[in-house]
Amino acid sequence: MNKGKIVVALGGNALGNTPQEQLQLVKKTATVIADLTEEGYTVILGHGNGPQVGMINNAMAYASEHDNTPSMPFAECVAMSQGYIGYHLQQAVSNELRRRGIDKSCAAVVTQMIVDENDPGFKDPSKPVGIFYDEAKARELMETTGDIYKEDAGRGWRKVVASPMPLEICELDLLKELVAKECIVITVGGGGIPVVKEENGDLRGVSAVIDKDNACARLAIDLDADRLIILTAVDRVCINFNKPAQKELSEMTLEEAEEYIREGQFAPGSMLPKILACMKFVSESGKEALITSLEKAKEGLEGKTGTLIRR
Amino acid sequence: MNKGKIVVALGGNALGNTPQEQLQLVKKTATVIADLTEEGYTVILGHGNGPQVGMINNAMAYASEHDNTPSMPFAECVAMSQGYIGYHLQQAVSNELRRRGIDKSCAAVVTQMIVDENDPGFKDPSKPVGIFYDEAKARELMETTGDIYKEDAGRGWRKVVASPMPLEICELDLLKELVAKECIVITVGGGGIPVVKEENGDLRGVSAVIDKDNACARLAIDLDADRLIILTAVDRVCINFNKPAQKELSEMTLEEAEEYIREGQFAPGSMLPKILACMKFVSESGKEALITSLEKAKEGLEGKTGTLIRR
Repeated sequence: MNKGKIVVALGGNALGNTPQEQLQLVKKTATVIADLTEEGYTVILGHGNGPQVGMINNAMAYASEHDNTPSMPFAECVAMSQGYIGYHLQQAVSNELRRRGIDKSCAAVVTQMIVDENDPGFKDPSKPVGIFYDEAKARELMETTGDIYKEDAGRGWRKVVASPMPLEICELDLLKELVAKECIVITVGGGGIPVVKEENGDLRGVSAVIDKDNACARLAIDLDADRLIILTAVDRVCINFNKPAQKELSEMTLEEAEEYIREGQFAPGSMLPKILACMKFVSESGKEALITSLEKAKEGLEGKTGTLIRR
Repeated sequence: MNKGKIVVALGGNALGNTPQEQLQLVKKTATVIADLTEEGYTVILGHGNGPQVGMINNAMAYASEHDNTPSMPFAECVAMSQGYIGYHLQQAVSNELRRRGIDKSCAAVVTQMIVDENDPGFKDPSKPVGIFYDEAKARELMETTGDIYKEDAGRGWRKVVASPMPLEICELDLLKELVAKECIVITVGGGGIPVVKEENGDLRGVSAVIDKDNACARLAIDLDADRLIILTAVDRVCINFNKPAQKELSEMTLEEAEEYIREGQFAPGSMLPKILACMKFVSESGKEALITSLEKAKEGLEGKTGTLIRR
């Protein structure tokens, strides 16, 4: 039975910091994707790439500085991260599907996302990439490199780059063909390779990272998905997070979400962009979005846990 | 009018050595792909990645040695190169199609290729990767790293790794769906990400590069393509190459090709693997293969140039 299309957004932080860690962690993701597939959903998988594109970017920059490797623009590093993470995800998902005797194809599609060159994001970089530093090291790097570093939700300091809004998925028609055939597609990796549209209509890569939750919201809207699920480290969204009055939310309407945001309930760079992405999907599609943990994705879809965002 | 499916194999060397060079060079490729699409062919594009995966591999290895970047296995480097090259190719092809008003999607699919762990290729590495060195530097690197370097068709010395035969494209079903919808698919980049099948059926990455011409032959056979075109630096295959009696071949039968190979007419690591890949496609499919230059691909398909390999 086909229960419809769901876009699942997976955090880059859920993938670990080395290829060996990632190969292990994608196995857990793969069991969840296989669970949802067995339940009758057509899964479209988006994923972050913060630590991975940071690693690739750092390695290419270091090798370029010291070892005559060509200098590699950030958009190309995002493309590399799509190949790298997509490979691990599709291998793990395919392995899991085969074990369960489910005859479905899974592959990552290299995906470009159009952004606006005049997006305010290019003026105020806010998207964390790469590894965490302590404050002293971050301040030293800001001095020596001119890059911008910011404190990231209590987890340490990270480099930040422009994070423009995702406007249009360049490969959408091709993705639609695969989804119609119930293939399990991995796409908008790292939010998509950031490109701008020139005056003549040509696409050109730019240095930016697109928020993967926003990109997945765009994807879910454009694919006419029945549900957007954002997987994170907690089972449910909380208000008064880490305070005595902390409260888990089983659902919230768009109005409630707006009120909580006004109260400053959600951490920028952490829960806030997830909530905003869900609100975007819900308000544009009229359907519901869910935030929960990877482990609870199936139960969340059954209404047993997670935070549902709805009109 | 649909004239059928053609698999086009593009050399990694045709893509230059830096992202800036590659961005320029893919534009020429894109005009050819658009030409063939306008002629009514459904193009499936495979490509090499020798210089690119060499660059990525070298950069990651260097950064790992000096800058705490995680050590990156070769299969993951191939996956990165698929993202990197695929991104440039699909962007250039999409730009060219849009300019001509052709409404077709183009995207790269991350693609794994199954090889046999007992393939003799793993015992005698033969596939060149990375940059060219002079003999003295190559011999020094052989001493210091334990890697193997070989002289590459008169162009210098390069590192060589295992090159097992491609047996099975893991994402074939998904590729078939896209080809059926006349999407322009970029696949088996660098010959595909090399994986072996474990006893329980699971896939696992291995350190190897698969010959992209062989991979494209496999792809063309499995997609039931009407033609395999291998694009290289010359318009036609020659016998007595670089000798006074040099002769361009407009066609050769499988029997003639075998005879030329016995005579040692084709350089290993250069023209020989292209001929062998064409012979494989022709003998298994009964259809014809073409070797010509990127610039002459369209004329070659019209029978005006190139070397046709047929039964």
